[in-house]
This record gives sequence, structure tokens and C-alpha cells, in this order.
Amino acid sequence: MIAALNPISESLCFGGKVGFYRHFSAICDSEMGFSVYQPPQAQSHAVPVLYYLSGLTCTEENFTIKAGVQRLAAKYGLMVVVPDTSPRNTGTPGEDKDWDLGTGAGFYLDATVEPWSRHYQMYSYVVEELPQLIAEQFPAIPDKQGIFGHSMGGHGALVCALRNPEHYLSVSAFAPILAPMRCPWGQKAFNAYLGANQEEWRNYDASELVQRGQFNQPILIDIGTADPFLTEQLLPEVFERACAAVGQVLTLRMQPGYDHSYYFIATFIEDHIRHHASLLT
Amino acid sequence: MIAALNPISESLCFGGKVGFYRHFSAICDSEMGFSVYQPPQAQSHAVPVLYYLSGLTCTEENFTIKAGVQRLAAKYGLMVVVPDTSPRNTGTPGEDKDWDLGTGAGFYLDATVEPWSRHYQMYSYVVEELPQLIAEQFPAIPDKQGIFGHSMGGHGALVCALRNPEHYLSVSAFAPILAPMRCPWGQKAFNAYLGANQEEWRNYDASELVQRGQFNQPILIDIGTADPFLTEQLLPEVFERACAAVGQVLTLRMQPGYDHSYYFIATFIEDHIRHHASLLT
Repeated sequence: MIAALNPISESLCFGGKVGFYRHFSAICDSEMGFSVYQPPQAQSHAVPVLYYLSGLTCTEENFTIKAGVQRLAAKYGLMVVVPDTSPRNTGTPGEDKDWDLGTGAGFYLDATVEPWSRHYQMYSYVVEELPQLIAEQFPAIPDKQGIFGHSMGGHGALVCALRNPEHYLSVSAFAPILAPMRCPWGQKAFNAYLGANQEEWRNYDASELVQRGQFNQPILIDIGTADPFLTEQLLPEVFERACAAVGQVLTLRMQPGYDHSYYFIATFIEDHIRHHASLLT
Repeated sequence: MIAALNPISESLCFGGKVGFYRHFSAICDSEMGFSVYQPPQAQSHAVPVLYYLSGLTCTEENFTIKAGVQRLAAKYGLMVVVPDTSPRNTGTPGEDKDWDLGTGAGFYLDATVEPWSRHYQMYSYVVEELPQLIAEQFPAIPDKQGIFGHSMGGHGALVCALRNPEHYLSVSAFAPILAPMRCPWGQKAFNAYLGANQEEWRNYDASELVQRGQFNQPILIDIGTADPFLTEQLLPEVFERACAAVGQVLTLRMQPGYDHSYYFIATFIEDHIRHHASLLT
């Protein structure tokens, strides 16, 4: 059965098409939104797909309008898919209480604890349901996938790639949360969504996952030295040590003076797109 | 006396700095906001300044976050200044009633009619007060100025340049309102801000102004053929005829399939920055 897709808007951009869509997610038992950029090459043949996972409070719109990705996706012939950061308006008690939990803060995990477990299944949504939908509805090459993201979404991208190296050929991140078990954002989310058992938390912590099995390709990470979340929330030194211990190739670039914003992302996105294109095309 | 400038935020971007600022405008008798991108070159020497005027409903933020201008301004060594589209919260009766009049819709003119005339002086603000402030507070070369804009702001850019060819060395526009006296947006605004005397309207209509005196350089204009405002509001054929009649050099490019959005602007902004850089640097 082909899933129903509701187009919200489509605009020509750099010879390709930016579209916003909504659909009913069976996994999240909720309507979900995402954006797709189809590069000009997709008019004649299927193209590789790059997934981008956004940070706390974002929707699929922030990256799509702010990063300047379309110029580069058109140049390198990549489709770019951006899901929302959580289900919305699900009626889950407390979903709109905090900006760093619930709405806009799905943390790309499958919640196991009530009341979140019914709708907050973003890990399975991103890894399984969304790629299946994209393969059905867009000219994508399903076995040529890469993934990247920012902050909470950088954490999500690394978790998806490290747990499914057979599904993703490339991974990178901007200012990712690299050791969520050890930082306030991660601890709050994991406690709420996964409960107190920290063994479960390890399945969603890049610094833990990399110790179980490496990613086949170098991991590219950019972080600004003026990022206000650097020392309390991102913890690059923990991930760097974990990678070194197991021999994971990591290109971690500390960018002098840059902050956590999309101005930082826009500055370095060309390097990330080139990184993914070299592994996907 | 140096005017007081209130910095709201500053972020590193492509080696330069994106900043948002607020100040009290004497001309508008109101607080005003604007953004400035200082390219890396501005750290060592003064640089030319390119003003961008935004369309209806925008603030200084839309273009600054959506157009991808910083990469190009850094490449060509241009400062980019983006004012807000009107004063806000002035207490003017009716300022928030319509989306195409009052707040977000200053039309870059000096209102002569009550209740608008006290605060809605965007023409003098853009042409006089803001450049003076920029010259005082930023490393700008005051006699190397260009101007461009989108929709209502494309109208504004053309009006500013055609009335002050001695102050602007370059002008271009995305989907500008080209004959405001003949379109609904323009007629509504001119009636409200300038009154019923259409002689006054001619001072703010590019298709009229070009007949009084040409701009010294070619004018570059891009418009998408899928722009929903093309035939009712933009009226490129009127401006094209007026330019042809007086020998004004005009590069009017109708871009197949593009709409009125920032996805259209982002696609063609490199050509515009190159156009301005060739005349400013």
C-alpha cells in the first residue's frame, strides 16, 4: 500500500524543488511533517538521499530555510530530507510544558515509558518509516543514504548511523550532543522517555555506541568554540576519547569564534555536503 | 554626536559577522531595527555597502536568515545592511489592521498624510539617516553604495536609486513592484500615505521616475514566471516599456517556474551580488 502524502507547498530552487509534506505516521501514531529537496538530477534519474535531523525546538523548516543546503544539493545531486523533531499535538500529558522535552524534543529515540511511548518513536520513524515513504514517493536510491544533523539532531544522526552502518554510508554533525548520558539535556530526556535503567540509555549515546562497533567511514564533526553549550551539553572530549580508544576515524574540527546558530551551520555546510557526496555518489 | 546603537545579537558567519541592532530613529520618531553583515575584509579596511530592502510583512530577519547572502558578501567583500520594513508599535491608529499597510508595509516613502506622516518616513530613513548611522558605526565606504530589494523592497530600491543616482552606484531587484500607481498594493499604500493627489505618487513609482532621468548603470531584475503576483502587482511590462522609451539599460530576466519566495531569491542572489560587486569594488 502506498502511504498518502499531503503536499503543503512546493517551490523551485536552484533548478530543483523544495517541498513541505505531511503524512500519517503509523509508528508515531500521529501526523508528521517533513521537507524534501529534490535536486535537478532527480528529474531524470534516482539520486542518493541525505537525511538531516534538527535540534531542540526546530521543525523541518529551520534547516530548510536557513542553511543554504539547496545550492549544494543541486551541485552534488543529492536529495535532502528533513523530518520534524517530534510528533506534535498528540495530547500526551506535559508535551508542551518544557522546551527540551516533548514537542520539538523527540531526541530521535523510541520512548519506552508512559505517557511518551505511544507517540514518541522518532528513532524508528527516522530509520524505518520515513526512508520507506521516501523510497515509495520520491526518486531516491534507497541503499545510498547518508545522515547528518545539528545539536540534538547531531546526536540523532550519530546514533542512527552507529546502530545501522549497513543503512547509512556517511554521517556528520554540527555541534552534536556527543555524550547525552552525561549531560543535562540527555539525562532529562532519557529519564523521561526511557526510565531510570541506564543500560537502555547506552543504545542512544554515541560515545557508548562507538565502543560497540565502529562506523565504516570517517565521521566529520564541526563545533564552534563560542558555542554556549560546548562544555556542559556537547562534551566532544568524551566522544573523541571513545573514538580514539577503538580506532574510529574522526575529523573533529573546533571552529574558532563560531556559535551554535545556523550562521555557523551555513558557514561549514559545504564541507559536510562534500563529505557526504564523496561517499554517496 | 554619535547615535546610540543597541546590539541585539552578533554571530560569526563565513569569517565575517552577522549582527542585529536597534536604535532610535529621529526621522521616524521611533525605535528601528536593522541587520548588518560585515565581511571578513572589514576587519582590515572599509568596504562598500549594499542595502537590501525587504518585502511586505518582513522584518530585517527574513533576508538575513534565508537568502544565503553572507557567503557571497564574504567572497566579494561587501557589507550588507537590511533595515526593517516599517516603524513598529508607534501607536499610529490602524497600523496593525492590514498586512499590506502600516506595520511591515512602509513602502519606502515619506508619508505626508495623517496619521501616518509622524512615523512613516522610510524613504528618508533609508536614503539619509541609516547610511549616516552606518558610516559612523561600521567600517563602510560611504560613497560606495548599492541597493537592491524584493517585491515592495524592489520597488523601494529602484525608487531610491532613480531619485539619487549620485548616492547609489548599483541597483537590482527580485520580483519588484514596478508600477505601483497602477497596481492594488501601490494604490492602497499611496492613497493612505500620500493622499489622493497622484502627482505626488509619481515620486515613488519606478516606471514614472525612469522617464525623468536614467540610472547611470544597467538595472538587473529577476522575476519568476510562477510568481502569483506577476500580472496584477508587479507589472514588469510597464517598466520595460518606460526603460525602452528613454534608453535605460535594463536586464529583465523572467525565470521559468520560479515563485515569489526566498527559494527564488536564494537561487539568483549570486548573480545580483556579482552585479553589485562589479560596480562597487
